[in-house]
Amino acid sequence: KSSFNQKNHPHRRYNPLLDEWILVSPQRANRPWQGQTEKTSGEQLPSHDPNCYLCSGNVRINGEKNPDYKGVFVFDNDFGSLMKDDVEFSGETSDFFLLKPERGINRVICFSENHSLTLPDMEVNDIKAVVDVWQKQYEELGNLDYINHVQIFENKGQVMGCSNPHPHGQIWAQSSIPSIVLKTQENLKRYFEKNGTSLLEDYVKKELEADERVILENEDFAALVPFWAIWPYETMIVSKRKTENLLEFSEEQKLSLASIIKDLTTKYDNLFNTSFPYSAGIHQSPTDGKSHPEWHFHMHFYPPLLRSAEVKKFMVGYEMLAEAQRDITPEQSAEVLKSLSCTKNNKNFD
Amino acid sequence: KSSFNQKNHPHRRYNPLLDEWILVSPQRANRPWQGQTEKTSGEQLPSHDPNCYLCSGNVRINGEKNPDYKGVFVFDNDFGSLMKDDVEFSGETSDFFLLKPERGINRVICFSENHSLTLPDMEVNDIKAVVDVWQKQYEELGNLDYINHVQIFENKGQVMGCSNPHPHGQIWAQSSIPSIVLKTQENLKRYFEKNGTSLLEDYVKKELEADERVILENEDFAALVPFWAIWPYETMIVSKRKTENLLEFSEEQKLSLASIIKDLTTKYDNLFNTSFPYSAGIHQSPTDGKSHPEWHFHMHFYPPLLRSAEVKKFMVGYEMLAEAQRDITPEQSAEVLKSLSCTKNNKNFD
Ligand SMILES: O=P(O)(O)O[C@H]1O[C@H](CO)[C@@H](O)[C@H](O)[C@H]1O
Ligand SMILES: O=P(O)(O)O[C@H]1O[C@H](CO)[C@@H](O)[C@H](O)[C@H]1O
Repeated sequence: KSSFNQKNHPHRRYNPLLDEWILVSPQRANRPWQGQTEKTSGEQLPSHDPNCYLCSGNVRINGEKNPDYKGVFVFDNDFGSLMKDDVEFSGETSDFFLLKPERGINRVICFSENHSLTLPDMEVNDIKAVVDVWQKQYEELGNLDYINHVQIFENKGQVMGCSNPHPHGQIWAQSSIPSIVLKTQENLKRYFEKNGTSLLEDYVKKELEADERVILENEDFAALVPFWAIWPYETMIVSKRKTENLLEFSEEQKLSLASIIKDLTTKYDNLFNTSFPYSAGIHQSPTDGKSHPEWHFHMHFYPPLLRSAEVKKFMVGYEMLAEAQRDITPEQSAEVLKSLSCTKNNKNFD
Repeated sequence: KSSFNQKNHPHRRYNPLLDEWILVSPQRANRPWQGQTEKTSGEQLPSHDPNCYLCSGNVRINGEKNPDYKGVFVFDNDFGSLMKDDVEFSGETSDFFLLKPERGINRVICFSENHSLTLPDMEVNDIKAVVDVWQKQYEELGNLDYINHVQIFENKGQVMGCSNPHPHGQIWAQSSIPSIVLKTQENLKRYFEKNGTSLLEDYVKKELEADERVILENEDFAALVPFWAIWPYETMIVSKRKTENLLEFSEEQKLSLASIIKDLTTKYDNLFNTSFPYSAGIHQSPTDGKSHPEWHFHMHFYPPLLRSAEVKKFMVGYEMLAEAQRDITPEQSAEVLKSLSCTKNNKNFD
């Protein structure tokens, strides 16, 4: 009977944010891949594209004209998933056919007027301007009486369903607290009620001590591969001190956040010499007017690539029906990410 | 104030199997799509491919030779995510770094020696032979003392991470009950303890009465688009009477199951005139030796396509961070699927 080694033996790990286990299969990392490969573009984009509906001064699909903006530009999504309208609802639903109308607002945030950029290409100060807008939007939308949650996120890359390379993110603000956020909140709350401290503050301390999965650190934030990460190069940026939401951040802290986002996304680009695709988004306290001492600001990065710019991890079959599964261990991923430079390798990769 | 209409207004629906809400945005179905499109193959495959490691008589990557099988053939996966070995584990883990070794067995099930087939192309009797093997495998693996759960599933199509078109499925059998199955079990159990009946038996009755989301029905099974489906054409095959697992099925019931699988997957192929990709899998009682009166056999089909063979739904960004979201309503999807023929449109589509 050999003794257990987490680098070689299949095992399950516990995710305390979702109260869920995941399957890790380190011995499987070497299996050959004969399946689907992703397209990469290689193409150098122009700084202004006359056909892009997000560029300055262009006309969008619905006929509206973008202003000649410079820097960050926010507008209501022309094809939102939510509507502002307050509708009359009789509320007759039965046990198995339970539904509720949902009100909300979808916005698009262009990060820059420059069509060819992505976050890692931008100056730290210009990324800070994006963080400023996140803060303002969280406040403005959160103050509306029918908005109880503000989800800020970015889909980057074709493989992540992003249909326009112009640097942009989204906000979906709505009446209900979405399922995954609610689950996270319940677990943060259970921990807070038991220990009187923030789960993520305690966790980050332990990670900084262990120094095995931490990739970047500055005065205010740490970027790490969570012990329970499911995507091959999944990371999380966490504030080192408990902060419930964006509103608590000072100018300096926003600059710290911008700086760690730039460094992390630059490492990502350097990993496979490609403009690295991901979905990223912020988890923070809901805007439901209740007190939320359990909340702790963090930002998830979920990138799909596994071995190269062309080969991604498929979360299918077993993963959809049974449990999230990963091959390469979080410690191996962290080691790779740590070793990469925070300066971009070269401009025209792909 | 207009009055709520589930065909036009954003709303959330409740999934009682996972105790989770999902977001439905029917008004968003018409947004233009300029993003990534999927490759389709079109190519007619040979009935035997000398380069396929699943075909009869061929040598696999690890050097083993497949027998000259006809019909269904099962073997241990050469690149499994689990290992049979029992390892020594000290068990020192801390609060935030919780892990446990996991034992198990991965198997591959070739559905037929004919490389060019998929389930909808096979005769009902030949699909029944697959169901027979599922039943036998569930029994054989489930009887091993260290196997407490047997996950049977199929990934079909490149877009679902399937790297070989040879008709095949998989089994991942393991010591633990996987996260999603456990969550389902908890909800089935809560319902059973409260009502003394099976959640899914009661649900199917209501669906048959409502007759809005039911696509197919025979003596023993119904195929329907769940009220809470997240994928555009997601369906579920449910046994009409409470059945905890495959072992309870008679020869006739297995034939009924084979027949409804054939009809459902044929409708799928006809939908976009393509060999329709999906992940499908069975949820049934675990093999942990405990009594499970709460369990009710069902099979999920999670297909990614949204508008055509080339345009899929991306579960990214908001969906990864916040909540599952769909555009077309389950009722609209059911209507489309119901209207399609159970006889294949033509042989060489794609
Ligand atoms: O085992 P396969 O078919 O090589 O691999 C496929 O199915 C597995 C189980 O759903 C997934 O973990 C893999 O990501 C996927 O590519
Ligand atoms: O809003 P977009 O960028 O058009 O669409 C993309 O992001 C949305 C939010 O994550 C998803 O619901 C869509 O499936 C995806 O294609």
